[in-house]
Amino acid sequence: MTASNPEAVHAALRAFFAQLVASGVRHVALSPGSRSTPLTVAADQTPDLEVSVHLDERSGGFFALGLARATRRPVALICTSGTAAANYLPAVVEAFHSGVPLLVLTADRPPELQGRGAPQTIDQVELFGTHVRWFHQPAVAGTEDPGEAVALAAAAVQLATQETPGPVHLNWPLREPLEPPTDEPPMAELLTNPSAEIRPCPPLPNCPRGLLVVGPLDLNEKEKSVIADLANASGWPIIADPASSLRHGPHTVNSLVLSTGEHIFRSSWADKHGPEVIVQLGGLPTSKAYRLWLERTRPPQVITVDHLRRHPDPVNVVTQRINLAPADWAARAAVTHRPDPSWALSWQQAEQQASAAVASAMADAPFSNPAVVEVLGALLPSGAALVVGNSMPIRDLDAFLPVGQRPLGVYANRGANGIDGQVSTALGVGYASGGPTVFYTGDLTLLHDLSGWAAARRLGVDLTVVVVDNNGGGIFSFLPIAKQNHVDHRRLFHTPHDLDLAHLAPLVGANYHRVSHRHGLEEALAMSLGHPGLHLIHVLVEATDNIDLHRKASAAAVEALDR
Amino acid sequence: MTASNPEAVHAALRAFFAQLVASGVRHVALSPGSRSTPLTVAADQTPDLEVSVHLDERSGGFFALGLARATRRPVALICTSGTAAANYLPAVVEAFHSGVPLLVLTADRPPELQGRGAPQTIDQVELFGTHVRWFHQPAVAGTEDPGEAVALAAAAVQLATQETPGPVHLNWPLREPLEPPTDEPPMAELLTNPSAEIRPCPPLPNCPRGLLVVGPLDLNEKEKSVIADLANASGWPIIADPASSLRHGPHTVNSLVLSTGEHIFRSSWADKHGPEVIVQLGGLPTSKAYRLWLERTRPPQVITVDHLRRHPDPVNVVTQRINLAPADWAARAAVTHRPDPSWALSWQQAEQQASAAVASAMADAPFSNPAVVEVLGALLPSGAALVVGNSMPIRDLDAFLPVGQRPLGVYANRGANGIDGQVSTALGVGYASGGPTVFYTGDLTLLHDLSGWAAARRLGVDLTVVVVDNNGGGIFSFLPIAKQNHVDHRRLFHTPHDLDLAHLAPLVGANYHRVSHRHGLEEALAMSLGHPGLHLIHVLVEATDNIDLHRKASAAAVEALDR
Repeated sequence: MTASNPEAVHAALRAFFAQLVASGVRHVALSPGSRSTPLTVAADQTPDLEVSVHLDERSGGFFALGLARATRRPVALICTSGTAAANYLPAVVEAFHSGVPLLVLTADRPPELQGRGAPQTIDQVELFGTHVRWFHQPAVAGTEDPGEAVALAAAAVQLATQETPGPVHLNWPLREPLEPPTDEPPMAELLTNPSAEIRPCPPLPNCPRGLLVVGPLDLNEKEKSVIADLANASGWPIIADPASSLRHGPHTVNSLVLSTGEHIFRSSWADKHGPEVIVQLGGLPTSKAYRLWLERTRPPQVITVDHLRRHPDPVNVVTQRINLAPADWAARAAVTHRPDPSWALSWQQAEQQASAAVASAMADAPFSNPAVVEVLGALLPSGAALVVGNSMPIRDLDAFLPVGQRPLGVYANRGANGIDGQVSTALGVGYASGGPTVFYTGDLTLLHDLSGWAAARRLGVDLTVVVVDNNGGGIFSFLPIAKQNHVDHRRLFHTPHDLDLAHLAPLVGANYHRVSHRHGLEEALAMSLGHPGLHLIHVLVEATDNIDLHRKASAAAVEALDR
Repeated sequence: MTASNPEAVHAALRAFFAQLVASGVRHVALSPGSRSTPLTVAADQTPDLEVSVHLDERSGGFFALGLARATRRPVALICTSGTAAANYLPAVVEAFHSGVPLLVLTADRPPELQGRGAPQTIDQVELFGTHVRWFHQPAVAGTEDPGEAVALAAAAVQLATQETPGPVHLNWPLREPLEPPTDEPPMAELLTNPSAEIRPCPPLPNCPRGLLVVGPLDLNEKEKSVIADLANASGWPIIADPASSLRHGPHTVNSLVLSTGEHIFRSSWADKHGPEVIVQLGGLPTSKAYRLWLERTRPPQVITVDHLRRHPDPVNVVTQRINLAPADWAARAAVTHRPDPSWALSWQQAEQQASAAVASAMADAPFSNPAVVEVLGALLPSGAALVVGNSMPIRDLDAFLPVGQRPLGVYANRGANGIDGQVSTALGVGYASGGPTVFYTGDLTLLHDLSGWAAARRLGVDLTVVVVDNNGGGIFSFLPIAKQNHVDHRRLFHTPHDLDLAHLAPLVGANYHRVSHRHGLEEALAMSLGHPGLHLIHVLVEATDNIDLHRKASAAAVEALDR
C-alpha cells in the first residue's frame, strides 16, 4: 500500500496550524480518533493554539460554535473519518445560518481506500452539502508543494470570517503511518491575509418615522453603541430582540432601545403607528407578533441589512437588501433627515405602558417562566453571559426581559432554531467567558444534549444551568393542534421524560438546587454566581401553563395601549 | 400567504402511510415538531402502524436502525424541519453502509418560505448527500394528483428494500394550516409492489481448497443454515465474524463454522495453508489479522458477494464481485467440485488448537473483557439478542466468543463503525426482540448516546447494558501513537470521563449491579435476564490492559499452531 512520509505530513500540517494562528485562530476542539492523528498532533504542537477534547462530535461542534460566538474568533474542529464527521452536521447548519466561523477539519482515508469497503470510510466529499461557505479536499497530506498548506489555512480563515462568515470544511486524506516523526521538522514560510475590501453603503432613507428592528445578532459593546447612536441621530426607536444583546448595556441610558415589541405589535395602536420605513438588522426577530404585524400592515419600505445574505422575509415585505454587517452599516449610514421627537416619544410611551401593564398582570401570577426571566434580569451581574435555549426560553426573554444598563451577552442559536447541542454551546460560551455564564433552558433541551452535560466537568467550565422543568410540556401547547380532540396530542407531540433531573447533578458533580418559588431561585442564583464550578438550578414551576401567562401579559399590554 | 387544503393534505398522507403498511412497514419512529404535524397525525391514524416518540432525532434515527435490523422490515422516521433533520445523518450513513432500509420523512417549509430567512428553515434538499439510495422532494402536500402519494410510498419502500437496501429520504414541503381536518377523508386506492427480478448467479469456483469468510451481516436462522450447508457441500470452512450471528445456532452442529480467525490468521500456519479461493460474504470482517494476512499472502482468487455493492477490498486483492445478497447466493451457488476432507479437517484442527491455547492463556488472566465475553457466551439464552459496541467490544467478541448451538442474534453497526447512537440502536433491537436483549459496550460508547439512555424507560424496552468501565481508556492503546513519548497521548487521545456511571441508573430507574469479578457478573447477568426492565451491569475491570490480554491470547494461539 502507498505509505506516507511522516516528515512531510507533519511539516505541512504544522505549517497549516501555524498559519491558522497567524490568521487569528486560538482554539481547536478535537474529538479523538486514529485517522486524525496527524491533525491532532500538529494542532497540539502549535504555539498559541489551545486544545479541548470532546467525546461526542455533535457536542464538540456545538461547543466550538459557542466558543466562536463568544470570542468572535474562528474555532477549528478536528475529528476522524466516518460517522464522527457526520455528527458535526447540526452545528455546521447552525453556524451557517448564524454566520459563525468554524473550520471543520475532518480526517479521511486516502483515495485508494475510498469505495472499497475499508472500515470507517464513508463519502465525506461535500458531507455538509450547501451548509458551508467552502468545501475543499486537499491533496493527501504530505504530497503537496511546500506552502500549499499555508495558503490553504489563510484561504480557509478568510472564507470563514470575511464578508459572509460561516463554516468551512476541509476534508483531509491521510495515509498510514499516521504517527508524526520524533524529530521536529522545519516550518514553512508564513503568508499573511490580504485585507478586506471596502464596500459602498447606501444612505439612510430620508424619513423621520422609521423603526430599527434588530434580530438575533452577536454584537460587542462598541457595536451596540454604534447602533444606539444611529437610533438617537435618526430618531428611530429600536425594537431589540433579546438575542441581539442590545437590551443590555450603558448604551441603553436615554436611548430608544425598546423591549416590548412582542406585546406592542399585537395592539391596534401599533397598526395605527405604522412607520414609513423599517430597517431590519441581522437574523429574523424571535417575535411572532412582529411577523404577523408586518404581514397585516405591510409597511411601505422594509430594508434588511445582513452580511449573511439571509435577508429574513418570510411574509414577503422586504423592499431592499443590503449585504453589510449591521454594525458596519450603522457606522456608515448617513442621516439626512431631521428627527421627529414626537415619533420617538410615542414609541417610548408605548413601551412604558406595555411594561407597566405586563408587570401588573404578572404581579400575582404563579411562579413560572416570567418570574424566572425577571430574576435573571435582576440578578445577572455586569458582563455575565446568558445562553438561552430555543423553544420557550427565548420567547420568555423576548416577552419579559426588560432593558437594563448592565452589559449582558445573550447567546441563542437562532440560525436554525434547533434544540440540539445547546448544553455544549453554553459550555463553549462559558469556556470563553471572563464572567459568569448562565444557561436558561427547558428540560427537553437539556436532555437532548446529555452527552454535552456529561463532559462539563472534564472541560473545566464554570456554568450555572437554570432548567425550568415541566416534564416535557410547554411549547406544543402553542400549536393549534393542541385544540384538536380527535388527535392524541399528548402522546404524539409531548415527550414527557418522567425523569427526576436531580439525578443529573451527581453524575457530573454539579451543585444541585431545587427551587419552587421566586425567593428560592434568587438565593440559588446568587449562591451559584458566587461559587465557581457547575450548578444545576432545577426550577419546578407551578402547574399553570406558561403559554397562558404569555397570553395574559400580551392581553394586558394590548388593553393598556388600545384604551 | 398560500394556504394548504387540510382535507387534501390529510387524504394524500393517509394514503401514503396506508401504502407503506401495504408494502411491509410496521413502525414509525417520530420526533415531535410543528411542521411535521400532518405526517405525524396521518401516521398515527394508520391501522397496523405502530408509533414511537423520540426527543433526540439522532437517537430516534439509531433506534429505527436497530428496529429495522432486528425485524428485517423498513422503519419510517418522521421529524420536523431544520437541524432536527440534520441529526439523522449519522444513522443514515450507518444504514447506507449496512444496507438497512430506513424511510426518512422530513417535513420542510414550502418553496415560498425557502431562502427567505424563515425560522427553522434550512436547505434540506439532498441533506444526506450520497448516503441515501434515493432522495425525492414531493410536491407540496395536498397539491398532488390522487394516487401520487400511494405510488410514492410504494416506490420508496421498493428502493429501500430491494436489490441494494438502504435509506431513502423524502423531504416533504408542507403549508399551513398544518392541522388535519376533523372529518375522516376518503382513502385513495392502493397500489401493489411489483415483484423483484431474478438475477443470474455465477457457479462456485471448482476448487476443493476454499474458504468462506463471512463478515458483518444480518442473517436469520434459515439463511445461516443455507450458508452452513454450502460450507458442508463444498468442504470450505467458514471464518465467521461475530457480527454475522453465524457462530451461534443449531446449524453449527458438525459444521465447518470457525470462530478463531483473528488468532489463526496471525500464524505462519495460516500463511502455509493459503486457500485457492476465498469467497467473502457481506461487510468487511472485523479481524485486522485477516486483512493483514490477505495483504501478506494475496490469495489467487478472492470473490466478494455483497448486495450493498461495497465489495470490501481495502488491500486490493478482490478478483470478482457478485452483486447478490449472500444468503441468496449461497442458496443458488452450484458446487461442482468434490470436497477435500483433509482441507476442512486441517482448519478444524487449527480452530481446536487455537481455542485451547487461548482458553489456557486466559485461565489465569485477571478479570477483564475476555472473561466478560466468555460469561456472555455461556449465559445468554437461546434467542437472545446481543448488541455490541464498536471499538473494543466487537474486537473482544471476535477474539473470544466461541461457536455455540444456541441461536443468538448479534447486532453491530459495522457499516461505518461509529460509536454514536448505539444505546438507541440497542433500544431499537430490544423493542423488536421477543427474547432478552443485552448491550455489551464500553463506557465512552454509552456516554456518547446518553440522550438515548434517558429515553429508555419511556420507550418501555427491556434491556440489560453490560458496560466495561475503564474510564475512557482502551482502544487508543492499540494505536502506534501510544508508544510515542513526545506526544501527550493521554490528553489528546483519551477522553477520561471521571464519572461514576452508577449515577446513570437512578436517572432512568434502572437496576444497578456493580461487578468486579467473574462470579459477580454471572450473578448479575442471570438476575437481569430473569427480570424485565432496565439493568445496568457496571463492570469494573482490573487495571490490566485489555490490549495485553488480546496480544497474549493471540500469541498463545500462534505458538500452538506454529509449534
